[in-house]
Amino acid sequence: MVSPNLIKALEAVIGAENVFTSEADRQCYSYDSAVLKPTIPAVVLRPTRTEQLGELIRLCYDAGLAITVRGSGSNLSGGTVPDTSDSAVILTNSLQKILEINTSDLYAVVEPGVITAQFAAAVQAKGLFYPPDPGSMSVSTLAGNICENAGGLRGLKYGVTKDYVMGLEFYDYEGNLVKTGSRTVKCVTGFNLAGLMVASEGTMGVISKAILKLVPPPRASKAMTAEFADVQDAADAVAAMIAAHVVPCTLELLDNASLKYVEADQKIGLPTDAAAMLLIEVDGHPGQVADEAAIVEDVLKKCKATAIHVAKDDAEKNKIWAARRNALPALARARPTCVLEDATVPRSQIPAMMKKLNEIKAKYDLQMGTFGHAGDGNLHPTILTDKRDKEEFARVEAAVDEIFDVALSLGGTLSGEHGIGTAKSKWMEKETSKGTILFSERMRRACDPKGLLNARKITGYSHE
Amino acid sequence: MVSPNLIKALEAVIGAENVFTSEADRQCYSYDSAVLKPTIPAVVLRPTRTEQLGELIRLCYDAGLAITVRGSGSNLSGGTVPDTSDSAVILTNSLQKILEINTSDLYAVVEPGVITAQFAAAVQAKGLFYPPDPGSMSVSTLAGNICENAGGLRGLKYGVTKDYVMGLEFYDYEGNLVKTGSRTVKCVTGFNLAGLMVASEGTMGVISKAILKLVPPPRASKAMTAEFADVQDAADAVAAMIAAHVVPCTLELLDNASLKYVEADQKIGLPTDAAAMLLIEVDGHPGQVADEAAIVEDVLKKCKATAIHVAKDDAEKNKIWAARRNALPALARARPTCVLEDATVPRSQIPAMMKKLNEIKAKYDLQMGTFGHAGDGNLHPTILTDKRDKEEFARVEAAVDEIFDVALSLGGTLSGEHGIGTAKSKWMEKETSKGTILFSERMRRACDPKGLLNARKITGYSHE
Repeated sequence: MVSPNLIKALEAVIGAENVFTSEADRQCYSYDSAVLKPTIPAVVLRPTRTEQLGELIRLCYDAGLAITVRGSGSNLSGGTVPDTSDSAVILTNSLQKILEINTSDLYAVVEPGVITAQFAAAVQAKGLFYPPDPGSMSVSTLAGNICENAGGLRGLKYGVTKDYVMGLEFYDYEGNLVKTGSRTVKCVTGFNLAGLMVASEGTMGVISKAILKLVPPPRASKAMTAEFADVQDAADAVAAMIAAHVVPCTLELLDNASLKYVEADQKIGLPTDAAAMLLIEVDGHPGQVADEAAIVEDVLKKCKATAIHVAKDDAEKNKIWAARRNALPALARARPTCVLEDATVPRSQIPAMMKKLNEIKAKYDLQMGTFGHAGDGNLHPTILTDKRDKEEFARVEAAVDEIFDVALSLGGTLSGEHGIGTAKSKWMEKETSKGTILFSERMRRACDPKGLLNARKITGYSHE
Repeated sequence: MVSPNLIKALEAVIGAENVFTSEADRQCYSYDSAVLKPTIPAVVLRPTRTEQLGELIRLCYDAGLAITVRGSGSNLSGGTVPDTSDSAVILTNSLQKILEINTSDLYAVVEPGVITAQFAAAVQAKGLFYPPDPGSMSVSTLAGNICENAGGLRGLKYGVTKDYVMGLEFYDYEGNLVKTGSRTVKCVTGFNLAGLMVASEGTMGVISKAILKLVPPPRASKAMTAEFADVQDAADAVAAMIAAHVVPCTLELLDNASLKYVEADQKIGLPTDAAAMLLIEVDGHPGQVADEAAIVEDVLKKCKATAIHVAKDDAEKNKIWAARRNALPALARARPTCVLEDATVPRSQIPAMMKKLNEIKAKYDLQMGTFGHAGDGNLHPTILTDKRDKEEFARVEAAVDEIFDVALSLGGTLSGEHGIGTAKSKWMEKETSKGTILFSERMRRACDPKGLLNARKITGYSHE
């Protein structure tokens, strides 16, 4: 329960029309896109100007109310599920201004709640390019992407959200404004707090403004698909392309199960008899695109592709990418519960990882499709289940444990792009060290002495 | 003074031959490349295995001895000058192993003391490319580059050191090992502590290992120079190239004063009558290089270049770069004291910045040459003086103050690539905010409760 006095104070900052306390309203913000138990917050706040953020945080923090900031709730690791029922959820969906797109200096300044795809389109309209393209970009927000260090299909060649954050403004727990980074390409003035905020999952402060890097768009691109009779051949082709010094802008894999689920759902003529399909796009200067496409075709043939199809035009190219973008929704529709994993390995370990994933699928007798960003080693093994079936869900949980063990044993990581949230906290020390947890906890106690800023996320919060 | 017991304990870790206490030895590590007062440390330690770092830090920290880690001392903001005479300097020059260069997964693993240029050469020998090229790369160390987030000539197109740090291992003040990041392209497991360590100038912990990103090398390149009768025309040409969507790998400027100093020192036939010279290199696919070189030439002509010279071969190209690389040494030799500044502006503000720099030079009647990375807005106005001449040096200090004010008023930053150290602490709040200083201090007290880890650097250290 929030005291009537606090409600009054909050209303004084953002207006009564932006303070929500009804159960129906609060229920809407109790969950996100991860398979986790919801928690209904005590109050939901919708600031309409970024300057209000500092005052809201100060009021909630002083009152001992936990704070979870929410963009669009597309988070896949529970980052936007409130920690306790004694929480305020702060919405950023009325903070959606693109403040500047600077075509001379190649940057943009945005408010936290700008939708990723809308931003990318606005940048494109000015003749520039914002590469990060997380799967959820049609709904996700830019500050959400920053707090999770969201990846996407272009990570291999263009990097992830982290690589595009030039500067940030954020409010600390006392409501003070912190400024870090710059509009300049180079800036080493003070600590790299923008670097620290990236992937901090709402635990360090609340972002009010971001300066994002833009690049000139590639002049040409070429997309193709390749089918394989053996998933190992597809995995080998991925490694062989990089060894040939070709870095495609996207290099995606769909295994046979994923192909079948997408085809059943979408009826777009996918090769459901193929063991795996690769989707490849190269971009850049037209000469480079021609050369690299030729090298890719050569590699695919050497790696025993059974069919190669080069997109003739944009319409065909878009059809190829629709198949990939529909993989998750198609899988998710097949059964009541969809557990989307994010284990990631160095790309040369993709063949070993695919082999292990198939063994795990058989061992635990699960319905599972694997697709993902093969080019950067970021696979999404996706288990279709029903969490009400306790016996089956226990097998799912055991399989997930084993997937992480395998990824780590291959030199990989727990999470490539979905974050730790509450979903993966318990595995953190296995990948890092006791010292890493201690260091992280010390730092977050300094930046959140009461443990109110999304405190259950990442390492969890310990009072000394 | 260090107690005999502590000396014994330190000797037990790294051997008596690696613990230096003579005044001559200690004096060698009392200064770096910044124009600042030296401080002679109490003891100098040279670990020979990275595992020893944790134990050394723990012993020094427990004993209340301040710790400054030193690579090659090429720092330009005082980052490697000990804080007090009650300090231990830890050398990394016996920690120089390149542990792995992985050509399949495009990364390398290195110890902290590896020399940047030697690393770049080893990477090149394996057919790959490590782009960061700070001016001091022939002597600087990789961990030094990371702690300062060193830039270089290729920042515009390829980014700076930050953009190549995939993962780190470091020891905290208690000697615990912290692991962050991964060998994978994508990794969001826990806080981005590698991002925090970048540019932290030795205040957060001591790096023992780094995982660095590598890229395929460009297939072709073309270098050229252009002379201008007016420095504003040169500055305009820089802005026009980016507006034409050409991102050269290097885009450097030398003003008339710099040209004269380099020519007097080197006798390489530079145009000493030109108001400014640009040095430009484009790289990438051969087709792209041809196209971009043509666009650059066109831009140069439109911006009234009085002469354009395209390098015919590598020998000519190397001659062009030698002129630029010799700018600082040539200027430094001209007078007893060389104050090298690092103010940086968004690149579209280069014309305005050049104009202001010339006004400041005239106003304070100084000998000053300006050169630098015009393409990323990172100029190095360099004042030649003699700090024993108090009257003149007071004018130098006033001019430096004004240079920072101008850079900030143009939307720029105090330091593009040299760091804050002790040299620029006092200007920190002007660029950022009171909240930024508070946040930074809180964080560093958490990671260094006694204030012993290079504590005078960046914001300075305050005990609450």
